[in-house]
Amino acid sequence: MSLLEKAMARVSARVDRALDRFLLREGIAPSVIHKAMRYSVFAGGKRLRPFLCVGAAELCGGRAERVIPTACALEVLHTYSLVHDDLPSMDDDDLRRGRPTSHKVFGEGMAILAGDALLTFAFELMARNARVKGVKPAWALAAVETVAREAGTLGMVGGQAADLEAEDAEFDARAREGMLHFIHSRKTGALIRASLRAGALLSGASAKKVKALDAYGEKIGMAFQIADDILDIIGDKALLGKRGSDRDNGKLTFPAVYGLEESQDRAREAVAGAKKALRLFGRRARQFEELADFIIERRK
Amino acid sequence: MSLLEKAMARVSARVDRALDRFLLREGIAPSVIHKAMRYSVFAGGKRLRPFLCVGAAELCGGRAERVIPTACALEVLHTYSLVHDDLPSMDDDDLRRGRPTSHKVFGEGMAILAGDALLTFAFELMARNARVKGVKPAWALAAVETVAREAGTLGMVGGQAADLEAEDAEFDARAREGMLHFIHSRKTGALIRASLRAGALLSGASAKKVKALDAYGEKIGMAFQIADDILDIIGDKALLGKRGSDRDNGKLTFPAVYGLEESQDRAREAVAGAKKALRLFGRRARQFEELADFIIERRK
Repeated sequence: MSLLEKAMARVSARVDRALDRFLLREGIAPSVIHKAMRYSVFAGGKRLRPFLCVGAAELCGGRAERVIPTACALEVLHTYSLVHDDLPSMDDDDLRRGRPTSHKVFGEGMAILAGDALLTFAFELMARNARVKGVKPAWALAAVETVAREAGTLGMVGGQAADLEAEDAEFDARAREGMLHFIHSRKTGALIRASLRAGALLSGASAKKVKALDAYGEKIGMAFQIADDILDIIGDKALLGKRGSDRDNGKLTFPAVYGLEESQDRAREAVAGAKKALRLFGRRARQFEELADFIIERRK
Repeated sequence: MSLLEKAMARVSARVDRALDRFLLREGIAPSVIHKAMRYSVFAGGKRLRPFLCVGAAELCGGRAERVIPTACALEVLHTYSLVHDDLPSMDDDDLRRGRPTSHKVFGEGMAILAGDALLTFAFELMARNARVKGVKPAWALAAVETVAREAGTLGMVGGQAADLEAEDAEFDARAREGMLHFIHSRKTGALIRASLRAGALLSGASAKKVKALDAYGEKIGMAFQIADDILDIIGDKALLGKRGSDRDNGKLTFPAVYGLEESQDRAREAVAGAKKALRLFGRRARQFEELADFIIERRK
């Protein structure tokens, strides 16, 4: 394991313990919804968004423990988006990370409610972050606002809505390219940017640092999505734990628009841009630099 | 029009103007989701929750303009819950207030996303409420936290989850009664309580006043739900603008558990209890007293 992977595993373990503490237990009524929430939250995610939130806080002079509730909230938000994206009326996926998707286990209605509950709970957690010592209420509020905006129609939900619309539409080559960037900068990029910004805001970071992290987030978000699209084609299906359904549905992907080789070039360019955005932070940003490389080198 | 109805119409008009300002326009991409959000928000709702929020603020010495973003957020939250409740995998309703439901107009996937977007936007609005002059960040955060909790699995979503579970279950008479109260105190009551509490918290109200408003909310929530169940049976379907689907689905309702007469008695008792809870506020609470009466006298 590289130093980066060790650091990621540390944050992941810490966030998992906190999530286990924060999420209500199955014993509490209505039992089934708490079970469904835990089923999807503890499904072996990489906890990338919490890692970005904690890392951004530390880069801005804050401490990990100050942002743990928000780091958890970001993972909970990400989980809600996966539960709803997998629904029959959306991407219609039966498997996610090698396990049956929420609606396959709990039924469609309960999966919708579990997603709603996760989304709602994320904001409760972010509000509760203000109780952590050293966090000013105004910082916590700024984090709530930025996360809500990036998760909303100008961000994540908007990306999914555009994706859904694009399925039935015909585009010329130029429109396809525009739509691809519109969708992915929102669907994946927005929450990645929000994770970095929330960590920074909760540490009272300067506008200059927030801006640098925004630029970093923009670039790694792009690299992450391209890498995901490529993995969907060439990756080992068993490692990914899902079928290659994006391709099957004829969705807009980077390889579909640019071809495999140019997609790989674009991912490498994005990683270089991401590292450049970190200059302001000097050597302290080494872990985030390594993360940018890791994003396009990962196998799942 | 009674004085109460005039006051409700005033708040409703004000909230509608604010909602029109806050909600993004159809011209902004992705157009369809903004259209879907507006379609359901501007569907002729009574704006009861904003009225409760504004009224609670005024009762606690605050001013209406201080809580308008949160009052709007509560209506937006209520709207999301209706959009998702109407889905085929939930209550499967084709009509709401006399118009086709969101999924009938925009498709199921888009209706789910519109609900998600409304829920997310509600929290953005609540965070933005802190920018209003005179509102302390800590007050706005307390409002976010209480609304998130009451909208979550211990509140509104939990009520809907229990409702969904109850559909397929067999109960004895005692369990039916327990389940009826469990569901309705959460499904309807929770957001009513949250509306009152948010208005009070945003006005820096004392714990004593918040508690009194909680008790009031508990009682009018109960009265409201009983009245709704009764209207579903005896109300004019054209006035209600929906089919009597609750009864058709064999759902747990007050008349189904207690019979019509005892249900009416219980609604009157709840109204009396609600008025009692307001004593602390003296004559200033007259409008909220009238509202309690109005809730069981309304025809739609």
